[in-house]
Amino acid sequence: MKRFFLFLLFLSAASSLRAEDGHQLWLRPQRAAPVKVVATGKNSLLLATARQELQQGWQGKPGASVALTLTKDKTIKYDGFRLGPTSVQAATEAGLLYGVYELLRRQQTGQPVQNDLLNPSYEHRLLNHWDNPDGSVERGYAGQSIFWRKDSALVTTSQDKTRWQEYARANASVGINGAVINNVNAAPQILSAEYLTRVKAIADVLRPYGVKTYLAVKFSSPVLLGGLKTADPLDPAVVKWWQGKTKEIYRLVPDFGGFLVKASSEGQPGPQDYGRTHADGANMLADAVRPHGGLVMWRAFVYSPNDKDRAKQAYNEFVPLDGKFRDNVIVQVKNGPIDFQPREPFSPLFGALKKTSVMPEFQITQEYLGHSIDLAFLAPMWEECLGSDTHQAGPGSTVARCTDGSVYPQKHTAMAGVANVGLDTNWTGHDFAQANWYAFGRLAWNNQLKSAQIADEWLKLTFGGPTAAADWNTQFLTPVKQLMLDSREAIVNYSMPLGLHHIMSATREHYGPGPWWAPPKMRADWTPRYYHQADSAGVGFNRTKTGSDAVSQYHEPLATQFNDPTTCPDEYLLWFHHLPWDFKMKSGNTLWNELCAHYDKGVQQVRQFQKVWDKAQPYVDAERFAVVQHKLRSQSGNAVQWKDACLLYFQQFSRMPIPADVEPPMNNLDAIIANDMRPRR
Amino acid sequence: MKRFFLFLLFLSAASSLRAEDGHQLWLRPQRAAPVKVVATGKNSLLLATARQELQQGWQGKPGASVALTLTKDKTIKYDGFRLGPTSVQAATEAGLLYGVYELLRRQQTGQPVQNDLLNPSYEHRLLNHWDNPDGSVERGYAGQSIFWRKDSALVTTSQDKTRWQEYARANASVGINGAVINNVNAAPQILSAEYLTRVKAIADVLRPYGVKTYLAVKFSSPVLLGGLKTADPLDPAVVKWWQGKTKEIYRLVPDFGGFLVKASSEGQPGPQDYGRTHADGANMLADAVRPHGGLVMWRAFVYSPNDKDRAKQAYNEFVPLDGKFRDNVIVQVKNGPIDFQPREPFSPLFGALKKTSVMPEFQITQEYLGHSIDLAFLAPMWEECLGSDTHQAGPGSTVARCTDGSVYPQKHTAMAGVANVGLDTNWTGHDFAQANWYAFGRLAWNNQLKSAQIADEWLKLTFGGPTAAADWNTQFLTPVKQLMLDSREAIVNYSMPLGLHHIMSATREHYGPGPWWAPPKMRADWTPRYYHQADSAGVGFNRTKTGSDAVSQYHEPLATQFNDPTTCPDEYLLWFHHLPWDFKMKSGNTLWNELCAHYDKGVQQVRQFQKVWDKAQPYVDAERFAVVQHKLRSQSGNAVQWKDACLLYFQQFSRMPIPADVEPPMNNLDAIIANDMRPRR
Repeated sequence: MKRFFLFLLFLSAASSLRAEDGHQLWLRPQRAAPVKVVATGKNSLLLATARQELQQGWQGKPGASVALTLTKDKTIKYDGFRLGPTSVQAATEAGLLYGVYELLRRQQTGQPVQNDLLNPSYEHRLLNHWDNPDGSVERGYAGQSIFWRKDSALVTTSQDKTRWQEYARANASVGINGAVINNVNAAPQILSAEYLTRVKAIADVLRPYGVKTYLAVKFSSPVLLGGLKTADPLDPAVVKWWQGKTKEIYRLVPDFGGFLVKASSEGQPGPQDYGRTHADGANMLADAVRPHGGLVMWRAFVYSPNDKDRAKQAYNEFVPLDGKFRDNVIVQVKNGPIDFQPREPFSPLFGALKKTSVMPEFQITQEYLGHSIDLAFLAPMWEECLGSDTHQAGPGSTVARCTDGSVYPQKHTAMAGVANVGLDTNWTGHDFAQANWYAFGRLAWNNQLKSAQIADEWLKLTFGGPTAAADWNTQFLTPVKQLMLDSREAIVNYSMPLGLHHIMSATREHYGPGPWWAPPKMRADWTPRYYHQADSAGVGFNRTKTGSDAVSQYHEPLATQFNDPTTCPDEYLLWFHHLPWDFKMKSGNTLWNELCAHYDKGVQQVRQFQKVWDKAQPYVDAERFAVVQHKLRSQSGNAVQWKDACLLYFQQFSRMPIPADVEPPMNNLDAIIANDMRPRR
Repeated sequence: MKRFFLFLLFLSAASSLRAEDGHQLWLRPQRAAPVKVVATGKNSLLLATARQELQQGWQGKPGASVALTLTKDKTIKYDGFRLGPTSVQAATEAGLLYGVYELLRRQQTGQPVQNDLLNPSYEHRLLNHWDNPDGSVERGYAGQSIFWRKDSALVTTSQDKTRWQEYARANASVGINGAVINNVNAAPQILSAEYLTRVKAIADVLRPYGVKTYLAVKFSSPVLLGGLKTADPLDPAVVKWWQGKTKEIYRLVPDFGGFLVKASSEGQPGPQDYGRTHADGANMLADAVRPHGGLVMWRAFVYSPNDKDRAKQAYNEFVPLDGKFRDNVIVQVKNGPIDFQPREPFSPLFGALKKTSVMPEFQITQEYLGHSIDLAFLAPMWEECLGSDTHQAGPGSTVARCTDGSVYPQKHTAMAGVANVGLDTNWTGHDFAQANWYAFGRLAWNNQLKSAQIADEWLKLTFGGPTAAADWNTQFLTPVKQLMLDSREAIVNYSMPLGLHHIMSATREHYGPGPWWAPPKMRADWTPRYYHQADSAGVGFNRTKTGSDAVSQYHEPLATQFNDPTTCPDEYLLWFHHLPWDFKMKSGNTLWNELCAHYDKGVQQVRQFQKVWDKAQPYVDAERFAVVQHKLRSQSGNAVQWKDACLLYFQQFSRMPIPADVEPPMNNLDAIIANDMRPRR
């Protein structure tokens, strides 16, 4: 049967490519040449995986012999490796496996190998799954959880294991070595004996791919699960409970990675409930996992309902605690100070915490960037953040260098990405959302990688291959890569340009526009008006020295630059400034006209993406072509909705006409608002 | 108070025009100069009206004396008149009134008066109101009926009378002299004594404006209302019943106009139920009204469910009856052979009935042209029909000349328009829909008038005036007139170009696209597929000699011209032909690409209309500006829906790509079809 498909494959012309369902991700089966694998060391699980991958995927000289060698080379860091055309040297078996994946990737994407040394930027490269025990996935747009299932969560089937193995393999192939397998809004029962049985089952499947298992824990678990009267981190009974629970976990999962904690945030319990600090809470857990080599990732995503500027709060709470955390605690900081918006300036915590291990948290799932409907390649967003210069230790103190140990001697380095994975056949809902999983892994491995290279690799692996047409590179790769590279900026343009943020629909789960949304008694910092502050005098959040003074959380020269609307980059203008509608932009436009132009550009960009994709039809299989085309149409409508809604909403305050070179609205504000009341997909 | 408003009016600059609600139609109050009216003849109701209008609206030399003179000039036809700068001569008092309106119109629109003779093209110029006794209006988009009200239909209030008077005045001002005040799908109770009381009340209010009252009657009224066992037109009891009923009506309304009948059509009872012909039915009623000077308008809109080509049926049924109708019967023929589609070729009955009085029926209400949401100026559509050459009596036998008595000696001539009037403040829902009421009256008066002139007059009367800005003509009149003139073709483009027809949504009351609509067991000729016939081989209805042969109902050279796709006008191509998707058009495009281009052009045209209207803002009052702007946005979205739906639907058959210069769809077909299931406004 397999031969028959192979035969079919050979028959198929470029224009009648075999339909693909996307399940294979960037790891589509290859016709492998024979290869001999010579591995040093004991035949461990990881080495067995490496050997199998080579044999399944070898594209080099048939019959070649590939040497996988453990070495003590001091230039090799963590699970890094040294690569030759037929050799991988590494300090760890995981390093050998990563080397094998790199070797195969280079063969498939046509990149040369010349005795390269490749070290990871971060020691720990983790996915955070916001998966609930009932199988739902918070901010998930690709079906139910691959880890949990309602009712039958504790029966592990062979189907489960197959999925987990495929998942682990995909992670390993891009260097991801850890997975937090449940939601940061954690259910306490995840730590119950029966759930831990399933945790062990998962960990056992992930292990051969070098992926460590972590759990998100609810800070009040000692009360809710343990029956204690308190979860006070300084209470001896609480300490003891966590120690016992930790031991129980490690008995089942000896290489358990540790805990991820969202505490004293968005209604979650935490140490502040007992008058303790984040450090008190984190350290208590850190002490519990330390004997087992575990880590605690403590999230800095905190804000209280009544603060005048949510953007300032994490900094205000965590900077005073700098140096007070155990060295196996890593403070996990979202890329921006608010919440994964299409564009935010970097969080001022980066570089400001100088004596604390800090890790960036990115969101792979597209909560604010169009779910799995809109096409958004997120590498440019992450590249932008990682490349941002904090100036905290002089010029060049980029977020990347402030978190990977280059600037501050962190005991541990890590990067986390909120996963976009679910039970959908293609894992991520949108075929192109796979690229974000891929890109996250690649950037966590090498935080200097360029988005263009990542897109190039991913497209070749995911859509290219030996059966591709001769002009595939010029007719498919080049234009579609450009589409990917432009896609995030298009979303910024049609949804929240010029520093606007958090003006999305709440009723439609953050898909589509909602600058008007403000139900009675809703806490202010959950309503868009809190963020856009539009009135007849202008629009934007005044975070300058005359406003909330969030600018002062940034190191000079940024504080001064951001404080002045004439020097503040346009991208962040309304993030930091409340400006009159006729404010003169650098372009010469009024602010209003510039806003209109951005929204319109976003719409036109999506239409351009549609045309690019339509032209790519002959170069891509029918199934994925049709699905992506369908989603691009929905995105196109979404872009128009965003543009029409925001322009008509803000026009109520600006009272200025939409310029004639902007496409006139085809929706009325009243109709959009009425429609906003019903969910839409 | 009135003075105060006048004062405000004087203060207001062009950019802050007084808001108007459209209720005044094209008869907005004028500051009148004093005028002396010298009228011959008895001071009748009509003369009183004429005198009042002159005194309210005189824009000529202050203190001038205007002579209204009855004369026996043989060049004056029907209610025609001879116009001088300060004089009107007519054969009837109605003619004097029409002359006054014309005089005032010329003054307001700045047209010269030079002893002009103006005769009406048609003797009877009627509105047909599809108003039901419960107050609903079939195909009405401007609120409830002005004539009927649920529960309280028989109480006539002063508010009713005011409305009816305003209505009658508007009609008279454009020469409309008859109104059928109930639905052609007639309820039998309209002929009951209690309803006739209200008919009398209405007639009494319409009379001083020269508007005669007519009723639509249900053919089975003798059974349903009279309690007879049959409605057979040859049954003496039936004949007697109608004679009695007619007498009863004329007792109440001595100048009652007559009956309009939809019989043996769309489930309505008729003479065919008794094996009689349309002529038998019509003649029986004609005999009943003849002693009173009444008319019978008998609709030719007939078709049966199982015929292979609905377009042929009216011709097939009525041509054999030519010459068999009484001379006070007029056969009322819709402009096209199907049903008021955005574009149809003229009905082949025009000119083919040579010994029968025939009157055109147009639809003023926008059943198929966007209800009162989309802006459609319909004069170009009617002008197109009236100007169509039937060739029935040689070249120049236009529909206009075949119906106004120029070609055949008709005993009576008439034109009917299905009204778009309701209780909405602005009468017609869309402010621009008023123009269609206006245009119908003007064309019924003069079937050679050009759409551009009508639009020019209407815009000046409706939006212009003495307070208009100096550049109003260039900045408002010229572009908005062009918008109006292009508006119907835009709708054809974005909904049913190239001769496509009847592919609208049924679930949304004929608003929006629905080429897929075909519920199980639905009669075929009510489903769009019956009309578009799209399949992999092509699209369109084959009405050539190899198909239904509807072409042969047209007189040569049209039959030959229509029969050949290379000579058939593009506008009617898919009306007459089923052609392959790659058929080479006159433009050089394939049929598919041409179809795409038309749909796209329609969308772009509406966007252009929006821009024109936005630029017109300083020249129009805020209230009407905002309402029209709002509706144009909805229309813009509707246009995109049409384009996306039809292109994606037909693409399933054409399997050809949408050309790159066409805007890519922003809706998916599945989503549009799902949305089609819920009504939308």
